Amino acid sequence: MGNLYIGLVHYPVKNKRGDIVASAVTNLDIHDIARIAKTYNSAGFFIIQPMPSQKRLVEWIISHWTEGYGGEYNPIRAEAFDLIRLVDAIDDAIAAIKYETGCPPLVIGTWAGYPGETVDYTKVGAIIETGIEPILVLLGTGFGMADEVEDVCNYVLEPIRGNGEYNHLSVRAAAAIIMDRLRGITQTD
Amino acid sequence: MGNLYIGLVHYPVKNKRGDIVASAVTNLDIHDIARIAKTYNSAGFFIIQPMPSQKRLVEWIISHWTEGYGGEYNPIRAEAFDLIRLVDAIDDAIAAIKYETGCPPLVIGTWAGYPGETVDYTKVGAIIETGIEPILVLLGTGFGMADEVEDVCNYVLEPIRGNGEYNHLSVRAAAAIIMDRLRGITQTD
Repeated sequence: MGNLYIGLVHYPVKNKRGDIVASAVTNLDIHDIARIAKTYNSAGFFIIQPMPSQKRLVEWIISHWTEGYGGEYNPIRAEAFDLIRLVDAIDDAIAAIKYETGCPPLVIGTWAGYPGETVDYTKVGAIIETGIEPILVLLGTGFGMADEVEDVCNYVLEPIRGNGEYNHLSVRAAAAIIMDRLRGITQTD
Repeated sequence: MGNLYIGLVHYPVKNKRGDIVASAVTNLDIHDIARIAKTYNSAGFFIIQPMPSQKRLVEWIISHWTEGYGGEYNPIRAEAFDLIRLVDAIDDAIAAIKYETGCPPLVIGTWAGYPGETVDYTKVGAIIETGIEPILVLLGTGFGMADEVEDVCNYVLEPIRGNGEYNHLSVRAAAAIIMDRLRGITQTD
């Protein structure tokens, strides 16, 4: 699964009222999703955040946990943080993957209540297994990614459902479940 | 899966040096695991924390998100928080489940690097499906549950593995993956 990238989208996302906004960074999103990405052998974890003050915060957190005291105190955390790249926009993440791999990624969107056509985990797992194209899975913060993000998505992943009607997982929990489901398909040992 | 309970253990757990300590509460553990529990139709989420100052903090957080402003602002969060029970010790969680269901729970421990014999998700899923006994899955905070917790566990669950050697997920991510894997077995639709 070395060709699978995660993108955590802070812009464009919806707020509670449905307005398009840039969302603030949550420290534990960075820690949790970096560790999930490392656990499932992801090729990179893009934090997509254009706001200068928020970018400085992310840079400070990354630097603390890689070069700073955090990295010394917890070198295992530093290993996961090495996967993080901070970019301004989804297009920048796509361009970076194209530059790294020579191929633009298949972009896979995730929305908790998506009403349209979706692909299931088996299909995405099969695409990953071919190893032909890199894959970028986009996860929304706030109240989900803006509808316009659909335009850059090749597919939308089947929403996570539990055993009932309740469907309000944190983005950290959703990231964990999505990566585990895709790994269940692609892992061979 | 209405007979499956989650227990988040703050005591007894290990710290970085392996000493047995009570760990502090993390606000987002409460939010994330309550939502995971609700999504996967769990019967209850026990926070196992004996320290008085930490118990007051948990009580304050629960009250804010159920009766207070948080509950008004976000009634969906309140639904998840209704699953939370705060107890002093693992034995108190066991006693509460016995009182509620008339049957003591099968207790299932989780340790990231457990060296002994474990059960896999299929076996636990099969036990859940029979519906005969309630199940309590214990999740450790800090650097994992103290070894003595093994004495109250009927089984230890197979550790989560990704696609490589890295195995340092947050307890929030582990809770999400464990509940999703068990649901994958027991869900029939």
